[in-house]
Amino acid sequence: MKNGKFQAIYAEAGAEALFLECDFLRRYLTDFYSTDGYVVLTDRECVFFADPRYFEAAEKRLKGSPVRVAAGAAKEAMEYIAPYTSIGVPYPFMSLAAANKLTSAGHELRDCMPALQHAMIVKTEEELSRIAKACEIAEAALSRLFGELKEGMAEREAAALLEYFMRDLGASGVSFETICAFGENASVPHYETSDRKLRFGDAVLIDFGCKYEGYCSDCTRTFLFGDDKQHEDFKKIYGCVLEAHMRVLEKLRAGMTGKEADEIARACLREHGLAEYFTHSLGHGVGLQIHEAPTLSPRGETVLEDGMVFSDEPGVYLAGKLGIRIEDTVTLKGGNASTFMKTEKKLIVL
Amino acid sequence: MKNGKFQAIYAEAGAEALFLECDFLRRYLTDFYSTDGYVVLTDRECVFFADPRYFEAAEKRLKGSPVRVAAGAAKEAMEYIAPYTSIGVPYPFMSLAAANKLTSAGHELRDCMPALQHAMIVKTEEELSRIAKACEIAEAALSRLFGELKEGMAEREAAALLEYFMRDLGASGVSFETICAFGENASVPHYETSDRKLRFGDAVLIDFGCKYEGYCSDCTRTFLFGDDKQHEDFKKIYGCVLEAHMRVLEKLRAGMTGKEADEIARACLREHGLAEYFTHSLGHGVGLQIHEAPTLSPRGETVLEDGMVFSDEPGVYLAGKLGIRIEDTVTLKGGNASTFMKTEKKLIVL
Repeated sequence: MKNGKFQAIYAEAGAEALFLECDFLRRYLTDFYSTDGYVVLTDRECVFFADPRYFEAAEKRLKGSPVRVAAGAAKEAMEYIAPYTSIGVPYPFMSLAAANKLTSAGHELRDCMPALQHAMIVKTEEELSRIAKACEIAEAALSRLFGELKEGMAEREAAALLEYFMRDLGASGVSFETICAFGENASVPHYETSDRKLRFGDAVLIDFGCKYEGYCSDCTRTFLFGDDKQHEDFKKIYGCVLEAHMRVLEKLRAGMTGKEADEIARACLREHGLAEYFTHSLGHGVGLQIHEAPTLSPRGETVLEDGMVFSDEPGVYLAGKLGIRIEDTVTLKGGNASTFMKTEKKLIVL
Repeated sequence: MKNGKFQAIYAEAGAEALFLECDFLRRYLTDFYSTDGYVVLTDRECVFFADPRYFEAAEKRLKGSPVRVAAGAAKEAMEYIAPYTSIGVPYPFMSLAAANKLTSAGHELRDCMPALQHAMIVKTEEELSRIAKACEIAEAALSRLFGELKEGMAEREAAALLEYFMRDLGASGVSFETICAFGENASVPHYETSDRKLRFGDAVLIDFGCKYEGYCSDCTRTFLFGDDKQHEDFKKIYGCVLEAHMRVLEKLRAGMTGKEADEIARACLREHGLAEYFTHSLGHGVGLQIHEAPTLSPRGETVLEDGMVFSDEPGVYLAGKLGIRIEDTVTLKGGNASTFMKTEKKLIVL
C-alpha cells in the first residue's frame, strides 16, 4: 500500500485491519459519496465494499485511485476481515450494535478514531479548495439575499431563499439547518427559525453554511434591516464583537492551543465588560463535518497547526434583547490565521 | 409516571433506567427539537437534560408535558442514573464510545431499541397528521416545479428549486438529498444529482421529500419533459410500474408481512417479465427518520399494522437506458393501505 494517507492512519491505529461504516469516514478514505457501504483498510490495501446500487458508479469514479471497489455489504466486509484479530473501529462513530457483531465474531476492537482524526484535522490543498468554494458560495448567496429581504418576510422564508441561492450556486446542500433570527430572537444562540416577520429597524442574525463536494462552510452575519435610530447599544456591542473576531484573525498563530485562541476573543470582550455574555466557545473545526476537531474553547487542548480549519465566532447575547455573532471559516497558513471569507464585516445597514 | 407511551417503552425495555442521547430518539420522547441533550426515563419520570443554550426554550415548550426539563449535559445525566445498575440504551444508535463510558461507570447495558421501535413503528394521530402535511408540501412543491422546468436547466437547478418550494411552503428542510435525474441518468437507482441539462423529450425522475415538525415525507415521480415520440418502451414500462404501485395500494392488508407486501409488487412486475429489473425493496418505514422500520422487502418479517407508515416504491431500471420509479408515502388504516399523496400518477407529459 503506497498511499501516504492510508499508511499513516494504518500505522497509528495499531490494528491489523480498520473497519469503517460511518458515512463521512467512508467518504474521507474513498472520496466517494455513498449512503451505504463499508471500507476496510489493511496493510495491503483499502477496499470499498459497495452495494450493487453504487457499484458501477463507485468503480467508475475510483478508477486509478488507491481504493479497490468490491461488490458487497456487511457480510462480504465481515468475511474479508475474518482472518484478522485486532480491528480498528472509530469508537465515537461505531454503533454498539455493530461493535457487538464484530466482537461476537471473535474480533478485538481498538479505537482508530484518534488516528483518523489526526489525519483529518490537517486539510490537504484539495480539501482546502473545496472548503474555500463552500465559503465562496455561502457569501455569494448571502449577498443575493440582501437584495431580496423585504418587510413582512418571515425568518423561514429568508432562510429558504438563502438555501436556494446556495444550491443554485452549486452547493449540494446545507451544512446544517440555517438559523435566521430577526430582532430579539437573535438573543438565543441556537435559535430555531420561526415565522416571525421582518420589520423595519430589526437586527438580523443569520448563521448558515453549505456543502461543496462533501466539505462544509460555516458563516454568521449580523446586520440591520434599516436603522430606526434605536440601536445605540447594538452598534456599540457590534463593534466589540467585531474587534474580538478581528483580533483572533490578527493574533492567532500556529502553535497556540484551542484554549489560547479562545482566550484572544474572550479577553477582548472582557476588556469591554462583555465576557459574561459570550456564552459559547470561540470555534470548532470544520471539514466533512460541520463540527469536528479542533475545539477552540476554554477547554481546547489541541495545538493548532497549519492546514487546520475552524470557525472564529465570538458572540454576545443579551436575553430577550439582542444577539450579535460574527463568524468566518478560517485556516492557518504560514503560521497565521487566514479567513476564507471575503466580504466586509463592518456593520451593514440594509 | 402516568404517560402511556413512556410506561409501555419502560416496561418492555426491562432496564432500571433508559439513557438516550441520539437526536431523533430524544425528539420522539420529548417532542422537542435540540441538537444536544440527554433523555433519561425511569419508573418515576422522564427527564430531559438540556444544555444552557436550550434550557429556556425547552422549559417553555415542555410546560405541561410529561417531560421534566433539567439543566445539564452528559455529566448531570450520568449522575442522575448513577443509582441504577441496568441501563437501557439503543444499541444501533449508541456509540461505542458512549457505551464504554457507561460500562466503565459500572452500569450494565441492555438494548432498548426493540422497545422504542415497537412504540415508534405505530404512529399516533398527531404523527400521522405531520407526515400528511410533509407529503402535502412535497406534492405542492413538485407541481410548482412543473411550471418552472425549462430546456437547458441542470438537474442541480431543478433540485434546488424544488427544495426551495418545499421550504417556502413550510418545510423545515429536506428529508434526504433530492435525487433529480434526467434521461438515461434515471437508470441509476441512487443517482447523485449532476449538472446534466434538461432536453426536450427527456424522461425525468425525481425522488424527494421534506420534514415537517420533525416528520418526513418520501415521494418519487417519473414523467416526460415533452414527448419526442421515442418513448414506446418507456410508456409500456411506466404502465407496468404504475400497475405494481397501485396493486400494492389495493391489495395490501394489515396482518401481511413486509415480505408479502413486497411480493405484491414483485409478482406484478414478474407477470410483465420485469422482476429482474426491480433491483431494490418495495419500501421502508417513514417517520422521524427517512428510513426506519418496517422493511417491505423479500426479507421483511414484520407484520404490518394499522398506523404504520412506509413507502410504496416499485421501480424498473434498464442500465444506461431508463429508470422508472413511482413512490408514495402510505399508511395502513382500517386494515387497508391509504396513501398520503393526492396527485395523479398517470404518466405526465409536460
